[in-house]
Amino acid sequence: MAWNTNLRWRLPLTCLLLQVAMVVLFGVFVRYSPEADAHWIEAKEPGNLSSDLENEFYYRYPSFQDVHVMIFVGFGFLMTFLQRYGYSSVGFNFLLAAFGIQWALLMQGWFHSFHNGYILVGVENLINADFCVGSVCVAFGAVLGKVSPVQLLIMTLFQVTLFSVNEFILLSLLNVKDAGGSMTIHTFGAYFGLTVTWILYRPNLYQSKGRQSAVYHSDLFAMIGTLFLWMYWPSFNSAVSNHGDAQHRAAINTYCSLAACVLTAVALSSALHKKGKLDMVHIQNATLAGGVAVGTAAEMMLMPYGSLIVGFICGIVSTLGFVYLSPFLESRLRIQDTCGIHNLHGMPGVIGGIVGAVTAACANSQVYGQEGLAHAFDFGGFKTDWSSSLQGSFQAAGIFVSLAMALVGGLIVGGILKLPIWGQASDENCFEDAVYWEVPEEPKNAASHPEDSTLKAPEP
Amino acid sequence: MAWNTNLRWRLPLTCLLLQVAMVVLFGVFVRYSPEADAHWIEAKEPGNLSSDLENEFYYRYPSFQDVHVMIFVGFGFLMTFLQRYGYSSVGFNFLLAAFGIQWALLMQGWFHSFHNGYILVGVENLINADFCVGSVCVAFGAVLGKVSPVQLLIMTLFQVTLFSVNEFILLSLLNVKDAGGSMTIHTFGAYFGLTVTWILYRPNLYQSKGRQSAVYHSDLFAMIGTLFLWMYWPSFNSAVSNHGDAQHRAAINTYCSLAACVLTAVALSSALHKKGKLDMVHIQNATLAGGVAVGTAAEMMLMPYGSLIVGFICGIVSTLGFVYLSPFLESRLRIQDTCGIHNLHGMPGVIGGIVGAVTAACANSQVYGQEGLAHAFDFGGFKTDWSSSLQGSFQAAGIFVSLAMALVGGLIVGGILKLPIWGQASDENCFEDAVYWEVPEEPKNAASHPEDSTLKAPEP
Amino acid sequence: MAWNTNLRWRLPLTCLLLQVAMVVLFGVFVRYSPEADAHWIEAKEPGNLSSDLENEFYYRYPSFQDVHVMIFVGFGFLMTFLQRYGYSSVGFNFLLAAFGIQWALLMQGWFHSFHNGYILVGVENLINADFCVGSVCVAFGAVLGKVSPVQLLIMTLFQVTLFSVNEFILLSLLNVKDAGGSMTIHTFGAYFGLTVTWILYRPNLYQSKGRQSAVYHSDLFAMIGTLFLWMYWPSFNSAVSNHGDAQHRAAINTYCSLAACVLTAVALSSALHKKGKLDMVHIQNATLAGGVAVGTAAEMMLMPYGSLIVGFICGIVSTLGFVYLSPFLESRLRIQDTCGIHNLHGMPGVIGGIVGAVTAACANSQVYGQEGLAHAFDFGGFKTDWSSSLQGSFQAAGIFVSLAMALVGGLIVGGILKLPIWGQASDENCFEDAVYWEVPEEPKNAASHPEDSTLKAPEP
Repeated sequence: MAWNTNLRWRLPLTCLLLQVAMVVLFGVFVRYSPEADAHWIEAKEPGNLSSDLENEFYYRYPSFQDVHVMIFVGFGFLMTFLQRYGYSSVGFNFLLAAFGIQWALLMQGWFHSFHNGYILVGVENLINADFCVGSVCVAFGAVLGKVSPVQLLIMTLFQVTLFSVNEFILLSLLNVKDAGGSMTIHTFGAYFGLTVTWILYRPNLYQSKGRQSAVYHSDLFAMIGTLFLWMYWPSFNSAVSNHGDAQHRAAINTYCSLAACVLTAVALSSALHKKGKLDMVHIQNATLAGGVAVGTAAEMMLMPYGSLIVGFICGIVSTLGFVYLSPFLESRLRIQDTCGIHNLHGMPGVIGGIVGAVTAACANSQVYGQEGLAHAFDFGGFKTDWSSSLQGSFQAAGIFVSLAMALVGGLIVGGILKLPIWGQASDENCFEDAVYWEVPEEPKNAASHPEDSTLKAPEP
Repeated sequence: MAWNTNLRWRLPLTCLLLQVAMVVLFGVFVRYSPEADAHWIEAKEPGNLSSDLENEFYYRYPSFQDVHVMIFVGFGFLMTFLQRYGYSSVGFNFLLAAFGIQWALLMQGWFHSFHNGYILVGVENLINADFCVGSVCVAFGAVLGKVSPVQLLIMTLFQVTLFSVNEFILLSLLNVKDAGGSMTIHTFGAYFGLTVTWILYRPNLYQSKGRQSAVYHSDLFAMIGTLFLWMYWPSFNSAVSNHGDAQHRAAINTYCSLAACVLTAVALSSALHKKGKLDMVHIQNATLAGGVAVGTAAEMMLMPYGSLIVGFICGIVSTLGFVYLSPFLESRLRIQDTCGIHNLHGMPGVIGGIVGAVTAACANSQVYGQEGLAHAFDFGGFKTDWSSSLQGSFQAAGIFVSLAMALVGGLIVGGILKLPIWGQASDENCFEDAVYWEVPEEPKNAASHPEDSTLKAPEP
Repeated sequence: MAWNTNLRWRLPLTCLLLQVAMVVLFGVFVRYSPEADAHWIEAKEPGNLSSDLENEFYYRYPSFQDVHVMIFVGFGFLMTFLQRYGYSSVGFNFLLAAFGIQWALLMQGWFHSFHNGYILVGVENLINADFCVGSVCVAFGAVLGKVSPVQLLIMTLFQVTLFSVNEFILLSLLNVKDAGGSMTIHTFGAYFGLTVTWILYRPNLYQSKGRQSAVYHSDLFAMIGTLFLWMYWPSFNSAVSNHGDAQHRAAINTYCSLAACVLTAVALSSALHKKGKLDMVHIQNATLAGGVAVGTAAEMMLMPYGSLIVGFICGIVSTLGFVYLSPFLESRLRIQDTCGIHNLHGMPGVIGGIVGAVTAACANSQVYGQEGLAHAFDFGGFKTDWSSSLQGSFQAAGIFVSLAMALVGGLIVGGILKLPIWGQASDENCFEDAVYWEVPEEPKNAASHPEDSTLKAPEP
């Protein structure tokens, strides 16, 4: 079937409508947090702050910038591995993230930063907005190459909303700890995306198979994304942890887990190839699974060897997933998962939730110290009577809530996106930039590159 | 006309002369600021500093590194979109910036950090030197592909000088606030570069038209530049703001403005194409206009919705500029603006100056608090009697001074660069790396890549 | 001779064995440093810490992330200049660094952070592990394209061990200052790598000559590596310096040295080409020599002009090395140095050691202040009677120790790697990804890219 992919009015109107709505809602609701407000100079003295450095900005800003790079360059370039979909991978990721962070500031703000009728925004909100959009970038990986930018904006609108509700249930109702988002970001994002792509199943996608692979340079572009994700993941998992030791510990645990994950991903990639050769897909993706899987437990006393074990397992699970599970999902369950997010975010996300629940359940005052335990899990106030095992149970419940929200949400949003009015491409035109982009013609032959000898520059 | 593009003696001599001059001038003038001097350990106790963290280094260093990335990777790769000018885009940008930061340390140092015969250099000077070079990178965008590296070094020498004079007039004489440099960096840099390229008009440039466009991979390289500029712009606009809330606020405002700008740039790009397709040029450039336009006001109480509005407008203005104004400037005014800096830095820079003037003029003690207002605008000392509206007037004057300096300076420098002795290429050899670089030959055919089957490695 | 390059069992087993060993050793030995441990909340009050910010994390973390980028993106992409070795450059660098940082945490931990039977790991350990791996990345540059990933893992295992011993001798026995690692990282890494490649001499390497060069896009990928190394080098040299002025000063000195280095590298590159053209190899490498050469002295009172002089000289020395010395080393001494690490790390590293020794020997209390001098060189405790000139002598001794360790270690490790069992490629298959990677076939012709006209999307 051939659909109309001309977006001339649909895309501009969607963008402008959404952006006007953002301006109005920001005007009504969003103000600066006290630490970003010019009144802070008056507030800090009675607040007993000895120094400007006590501004939350200095605790979080370097991590924020690293997370920002992960969302825009990390996810954007990770998806450029497709030979003819680089513009769309980077460009649509840019577009959906730019909209998503605004909408996330509002949604998360209403749930978590709403005071006297205003959402008070500071650097932590910016990080959380990036996190929320991260889950949309994950889901984008499942539908990459098969949806129009209008569909992506609509998916972002709904997914950010559902993410925020799910996050509220987990963090505020279940009192779950999930600083690196194994459950809220990765599990939710992955299974949401997989459900959407299942609804959007394209029976004739084999017609685009020729473009659903890499060329040499596109794989190198993708490695830019992989490496920035890998390198900055310690910032991701520590960005919103408690000040001091918790941030410190989260960075160390993530560093360890990711390192271990690289070795087992390489080992499996080679072992599963008949000539022992490495597959770029595994290096680009499975090496990151360790970061996903310590998302929940990174700030806990997981211990460096615990982190190594988590990374060890996830490198294996993720690579096995690419080799055996993805083809099965596509052929039997009709889940066309372009980037293999089930292997990078789905399974490792669930593992991360389980690791977090177990680590929380095992927490005790010998390992954490009396004060440390209360501080790490907010055992105080109405949680005074909580035990570690109760915390662990609630952590486990968080996994199921996230999965349920993802599945139900994905069904509804997938249904909406299936309407044939959003400018999506036909099956034979998937994975092709030229559908939505003005693409330069390839130079016909090498003669169009004047070599040295043809330059009309006389020598002295 | 064919010119001599052999730089064998001109480029080495220029580089060595300039660098020797830098060594001598640094030897005579440059020393460490007290916070970078080994005496600091003695100084900090009477100075009542409770902690090593109070060293300015920790307030500014993360922002400095982000700004550094913007100058070298951001601007450098943004200009690699040309199909055969990648080496020069990245390489010449590298060269001019490396020289420019040294010269800027001296020029800005004489104006702002001169004490007892010495320029005292600290991390804030490094940031300001990068900022100054940023304005040269902007101007480079206008003449990209048409000038030799010798011309670029000479342009840098003069432009850094003029920048520093202009900056001194604005910041020290007019007491203007311009932390993100809408006026000093973008307005000045853009109109200076446009004037230079107007003087250097090349009537037969159409002969190089075939190379004045992108190929598929060059556009992806350019997106690396775009994204690092976009992501780190909050650091750019907050890097030299007051400690605490001002830095915090500047980051938030820039984040918001840039996000809004992406949506309107995409909307206009699609709306202005007859089939609704997106144009990479707009995505690479117009999405950044929001960062330029909050440069002045980012540290003020612009409010998040104010930032969104600024970004909203600039995404539209900038994209319209690329579609309608640039062709007009080239055909009617003979301004050949390779990268369209008028759309990305010129118009948004002026808008940024206006936004800053209006925001300053509207400032009051209700919004800022009594102390906050005085702190934000340095109302104190000889400025005790200043009102917000007076500040606003001086802000507005800063725009005109910057424009005047840019135009007059551009005319003079353009005249110097027009001399046919700097190794510039002829019109038909523009936008071509092979003029100044040893360029590898393209592989003649795919056979030069041995595929698996041709590898002489027997299997076991 | 044709070797068996099938790694199916060798690579997976090596990876898994090493990783299991890491898990076990981490389990036995590695715990969190007090500042990353949940007990910190109890410890900080008696420790008189006024704020969470006093956690070492906030002093070092931004620098750590910059160093991390240098190791993985910097070194990884710097080596992608080869036309058909991009996967291996980035991928093997990723693999060896991921293993190396774990092993370095252990080795360096036993020497420097061993308390009551446990290695206590904090952010400074992460930085030092990255540093240690940096020296392996340097050595990798010499053997790039000629070794299998199994060989690289074995080289990493031994080199990290030797590095740690050498570092212990220098820092703990000789009391040498070497914060940026001119001696420990660059001199040791370079001469170790050169010795290994000398042992692994391949007489018929000319058979792979066609692939031992760049193509247009591979040079641009390499510039990503160059620029991230160049930009973040101030963080590298300041990352583990003393808090406060020393970190501040190290960043300034490195910034200055690198800037000067760019100009002289460009000057020499042009002057040494018969038509005055620039060579990408020089721009990619020689521009970095200034960062190597201020590694030791960056935190000392080298003065900004001193840094410029160091950079000035190293840009010249390094470029001359590429043009004259590397061909000589290859033809006469049979040292096949793929990336020219002798020019970028070897000579500049030795220069850096000398500059450090001289700067230390000249240190006096007039320049540093009484307290500052003692603080900068740890003159106190058992070093109470040390003079600056004694410090200088020990610094100089450090150079020779590093060279000796590198040569002896390189001979042994080279001998081990020469065994024909590690899956190395034959001489005619060097510099070729297809040996170890599943490489996508190149599209046969442009027809495989459907252009606009062929898209089956009807217009409305």
